[in-house]
Amino acid sequence: MQNKLGVAILGATGAVGQRFIQLLENHPWFYVAEVVASSRSAGQTYRSATNWVLDGNPPASVSELVVKPLDANLDSVLVFSALPKEAAETREIELASVGHIVCTNASTNRMLEDVPLLLPEVNGSHLNLLQRQRSERGWKTGALVANSNCTAMPVVMALAPLKQFGISKIQVVSQQAISGAGYPGVASLDILDNIIPYVSGDEQKLETETLKMLGEFVGGHIQWLDSLVSATCTRVPVIDGHMVTVSVSLDSKPSLDEVIATWESYRGYEPVAMLPSAPQPPLEYHTQIDRPQSRRDRNAGNGMATSIGRLRECPILGYKFAALSHNTIRGAAGCSILNAELMAVEGYIPEFTPHDVVHA
Amino acid sequence: MQNKLGVAILGATGAVGQRFIQLLENHPWFYVAEVVASSRSAGQTYRSATNWVLDGNPPASVSELVVKPLDANLDSVLVFSALPKEAAETREIELASVGHIVCTNASTNRMLEDVPLLLPEVNGSHLNLLQRQRSERGWKTGALVANSNCTAMPVVMALAPLKQFGISKIQVVSQQAISGAGYPGVASLDILDNIIPYVSGDEQKLETETLKMLGEFVGGHIQWLDSLVSATCTRVPVIDGHMVTVSVSLDSKPSLDEVIATWESYRGYEPVAMLPSAPQPPLEYHTQIDRPQSRRDRNAGNGMATSIGRLRECPILGYKFAALSHNTIRGAAGCSILNAELMAVEGYIPEFTPHDVVHA
Amino acid sequence: MQNKLGVAILGATGAVGQRFIQLLENHPWFYVAEVVASSRSAGQTYRSATNWVLDGNPPASVSELVVKPLDANLDSVLVFSALPKEAAETREIELASVGHIVCTNASTNRMLEDVPLLLPEVNGSHLNLLQRQRSERGWKTGALVANSNCTAMPVVMALAPLKQFGISKIQVVSQQAISGAGYPGVASLDILDNIIPYVSGDEQKLETETLKMLGEFVGGHIQWLDSLVSATCTRVPVIDGHMVTVSVSLDSKPSLDEVIATWESYRGYEPVAMLPSAPQPPLEYHTQIDRPQSRRDRNAGNGMATSIGRLRECPILGYKFAALSHNTIRGAAGCSILNAELMAVEGYIPEFTPHDVVHA
Amino acid sequence: MQNKLGVAILGATGAVGQRFIQLLENHPWFYVAEVVASSRSAGQTYRSATNWVLDGNPPASVSELVVKPLDANLDSVLVFSALPKEAAETREIELASVGHIVCTNASTNRMLEDVPLLLPEVNGSHLNLLQRQRSERGWKTGALVANSNCTAMPVVMALAPLKQFGISKIQVVSQQAISGAGYPGVASLDILDNIIPYVSGDEQKLETETLKMLGEFVGGHIQWLDSLVSATCTRVPVIDGHMVTVSVSLDSKPSLDEVIATWESYRGYEPVAMLPSAPQPPLEYHTQIDRPQSRRDRNAGNGMATSIGRLRECPILGYKFAALSHNTIRGAAGCSILNAELMAVEGYIPEFTPHDVVHA
Repeated sequence: MQNKLGVAILGATGAVGQRFIQLLENHPWFYVAEVVASSRSAGQTYRSATNWVLDGNPPASVSELVVKPLDANLDSVLVFSALPKEAAETREIELASVGHIVCTNASTNRMLEDVPLLLPEVNGSHLNLLQRQRSERGWKTGALVANSNCTAMPVVMALAPLKQFGISKIQVVSQQAISGAGYPGVASLDILDNIIPYVSGDEQKLETETLKMLGEFVGGHIQWLDSLVSATCTRVPVIDGHMVTVSVSLDSKPSLDEVIATWESYRGYEPVAMLPSAPQPPLEYHTQIDRPQSRRDRNAGNGMATSIGRLRECPILGYKFAALSHNTIRGAAGCSILNAELMAVEGYIPEFTPHDVVHA
Repeated sequence: MQNKLGVAILGATGAVGQRFIQLLENHPWFYVAEVVASSRSAGQTYRSATNWVLDGNPPASVSELVVKPLDANLDSVLVFSALPKEAAETREIELASVGHIVCTNASTNRMLEDVPLLLPEVNGSHLNLLQRQRSERGWKTGALVANSNCTAMPVVMALAPLKQFGISKIQVVSQQAISGAGYPGVASLDILDNIIPYVSGDEQKLETETLKMLGEFVGGHIQWLDSLVSATCTRVPVIDGHMVTVSVSLDSKPSLDEVIATWESYRGYEPVAMLPSAPQPPLEYHTQIDRPQSRRDRNAGNGMATSIGRLRECPILGYKFAALSHNTIRGAAGCSILNAELMAVEGYIPEFTPHDVVHA
Repeated sequence: MQNKLGVAILGATGAVGQRFIQLLENHPWFYVAEVVASSRSAGQTYRSATNWVLDGNPPASVSELVVKPLDANLDSVLVFSALPKEAAETREIELASVGHIVCTNASTNRMLEDVPLLLPEVNGSHLNLLQRQRSERGWKTGALVANSNCTAMPVVMALAPLKQFGISKIQVVSQQAISGAGYPGVASLDILDNIIPYVSGDEQKLETETLKMLGEFVGGHIQWLDSLVSATCTRVPVIDGHMVTVSVSLDSKPSLDEVIATWESYRGYEPVAMLPSAPQPPLEYHTQIDRPQSRRDRNAGNGMATSIGRLRECPILGYKFAALSHNTIRGAAGCSILNAELMAVEGYIPEFTPHDVVHA
Repeated sequence: MQNKLGVAILGATGAVGQRFIQLLENHPWFYVAEVVASSRSAGQTYRSATNWVLDGNPPASVSELVVKPLDANLDSVLVFSALPKEAAETREIELASVGHIVCTNASTNRMLEDVPLLLPEVNGSHLNLLQRQRSERGWKTGALVANSNCTAMPVVMALAPLKQFGISKIQVVSQQAISGAGYPGVASLDILDNIIPYVSGDEQKLETETLKMLGEFVGGHIQWLDSLVSATCTRVPVIDGHMVTVSVSLDSKPSLDEVIATWESYRGYEPVAMLPSAPQPPLEYHTQIDRPQSRRDRNAGNGMATSIGRLRECPILGYKFAALSHNTIRGAAGCSILNAELMAVEGYIPEFTPHDVVHA
């Protein structure tokens, strides 16, 4: 028998860091033991160092923790990283090299060949890449696992069950919430009563991360899905929830009903169903013609489910539909936590076995 | 020498009717002489019958006009129709049959084979269809001319100059302003902090009207453009301005620079340049990577210009870009007025010649 | 031992009706047994009769209930009414007269002299009015209890603890969410990027209901608080949460610290603390200078707590502050449910004792 | 005969600086000759140095001007300052001391005893203070004139005509647009679907500037209005337009009709009516019960008029109403320009007489 596992949050004072802390309040396996941020915040209590931008207040259990500097030695084996890109690059590798399990939301190391871009239901088997990661880098127990860009998330969740039909072309137009840009992020003068037809960097991420995530672990590496992807990313005046409009060509020409049935029965990588943060089921198909909607459906499955709707024929690519995920839960902190849960049940976290946790 | 031409507005108290009245204030050729609405409003002054939803107040010159019922005989030769679909169907035909020039924004009669779906710069020559309309229907001087759906407008404006390259596939995702749904239209609870992935009827209109407008007048009828169109229409929390994200295949594979140069030099049907409501030029290409934006660009050219940006390669169809038009100006009332102006200079309005107007 | 108490919802398909149903999902004492709506909906399942405007979907347990017509005999002793004003007037009285306990959110009967305007923490003792209500009307076990206007709620919650200092003048400016107007309610064209300086009827309600709620049960009737109230009500582009800016004169001139301490220690009518929907504590005072905020604080205490902040001197009235309550939870359905819970523990619901409920 | 007067804009690249440039396009007397900004921008063309946040694009006539550094010697006699507070403090004084006429929107020097806080219709006679300013400071032809905080503006415009009735108490609650905070200003995550009950510094400004502006020039100085002011400032999700809810006590107890008549007939300081930027009339009283509204009325009089509505009895102070001004036009750049126009006709700008301007 053991207690819950204390974890560290890197970049704890930022918007995604706050979401980690919010989601880990009352988590059955993990609790926040260490909060880490830039030298500007280090030494202060979390409460005083943080401009809390989520609803309500920071959890009492974390408010009085003293923020550690970015270069501090950490006691926690499991580390969640919400660091900005530049800060993440070397620090995440350093921590993994000294034995930490680093689950990162940063984009920096995501596309490294030996880093799993993990979306548990879809590609839980990509964890096998860690064997190569450890052996090539000489790490014994450390590991670095990433989650994807928040906009690729609903695309991949919706397309994963359709891989069996053969996917050769994917056209995506996103409508992304402002929280995707962090805090302060998008100026209100730029987005109130407005649409911005561009999100820096996201189109390129969508066109590559999607294929890596949908790839197969074969012969010790990830073989990307062989498909064309065309992405357009836009910013809309919505707080949370990234909507994507997807057109896709499916080689074996399933009927619309077959596609819907495939989504509805999808459960993905089997061990995921038992994880505490896993939505049951991962996908919800809406038959109402005007769903999913950003505000009304972003919290499905506590923000971890993906909502799909409007499947119909596309005169050009064959099939089109809309999909939605909560960008800072499923698309960021929530996915990192689910990744860590999967690693826990698969034995990747040294000396920690979830079923032994004493629920205080 | 003569005075300005008095015109009648059908459906004058509704949102589009109000826009007609606003745009015709201080028009150099036309003035609002008659306002027509449902029996509920008839008999009242325009001011008291109307819940003015645009900025400011109704023009003083119209406020005291007494609203006429829908079945009233009209003195004005030129009639603008902002009637709802059902009311428009027979009344517009009746008025044209007794000699009125009816410029309609209603969707009902738009797709009739002998009704020009007029977008002056793009297809001014479609007015030639009126000869057939009049002869087949036995109308002497009356005519019925429509403008298109407000979402098709920016698509057609942007694609018209590209017809020379051969257009075979058009993929469109729209982000439509709430004013496109009229008043009261979209409930605020449905759209604040939300995206609705569906706009009733608009996808079908986009997939057909686009091809008719881009068609050629050949052998006495309109030969539609031969192209595949796939449309997805969404509603966004924006007051005015319909944004479209377009992917298109162009047979002759022009360079991106050639496409931009084609847009920048585009002037369209020659007589349009002299019309008072014509934007100069009709298209504006933005080089800033995050433009056009709904709020910042919808009023370009007094709401009559179309703004384009973000031209780049589409891995699937070859080319993609964003375009924006003001949906209730260029996409509705403003286009009808431009249509009427073109008809005036081309001699379709009996006993009215614009260059003789005395500017009081 | 007994099962949960089945309840009926009048006006179940409307916006407030939906909130009742959402809040009663998993309620420890009550469950929704009957849904009642207009003849247009009667006979259909709740799912098909309802355009669900809250997040997600209607609870599965209610979706398949068949909607009963407004004049149906009801099996449930406890009835929650979300009827529109006109429909409420006679039907609520009829139901109470045949033995139902009617907890209403409708404004119609609120100001009747023998109807408690119940806000449990503040004036739980007003339930004593029911003795008079029953005796004068000849009702044996039925009762009619109302909750207040959604904007009066945060004013009364914040002022109740201050009655001890003597309140002689109350100046209120509200900023009210769109959900306060029901569905479809406020047109999006009226409120996006806009403030409307008027909410029909609410100023008058605020200026009267406030005084009745803050009154004392003396000599068999409610003696209103003797104070001047001046209210201005505005509508703002916010989904949920009514903010009020209050200036108040306090006769005994407490220090600002005394006022804050009074709020922080406030628990109100003692039996309320044990009620399942009661927030603990009912009031939260924010020390951050820019709180409470509508979006970030409306869900405090599951939407049942009132958030207060910015207490400072008012050069004119002495004291000023901001307060916020969730208008469709604490200010409507949630308050009605809390009212019923108080009635249950005080023995007003025949043959139902909460502590005997079997929690299945 | 002479040409238009070239003017310099300090802080030209910021949000208010942009508004100056937009409003001066096609001004009949002035044109932008010099643009001045921080060293970061100096040396670049205005187009490349500026992130234009208003609608459309910067005027062509200004786009190619080279930005001068803050310490540059300026050729233009007339200087408009949109500098941030710190930068304004000494530079504005320096420029005035070497002969420039400085019309500033910065708050720094506003409350200096010898600086007129000019709102031309209301207190044009405060320009007499310049005699003292010049003599005490030893300036020959230079001058420093300020305009007020953007929220005080509608309060003062509405109250000025009521001074004749005796104003002893003023209670204000503001609902301020995001553009009042400049760019980037308010983070979208802070204001979408939200109200912030606090605007840093504005309550204090409102409680002092209001009294100075409503004061009288007597005996060589400004004698403030002797009245109590209590202000609460809030931020709302509106692009432009500051709404204020005002309660006021009027000693001579005029009828509501008298007050309205007073507003409607108000023209203010006589020379203002002939100024090109002066709205005709300065005040518009709305009889519609739900006006003024931020979006629909902010552009009244090209953004220079103040809209008033909802006058009714206040049970506490006697009178209450709503007023609205465009905060970056009448409340900032537009007011500074009107101030300069008044100074021009009153002979304060050396060697410049407006009626001699050649309109090219």
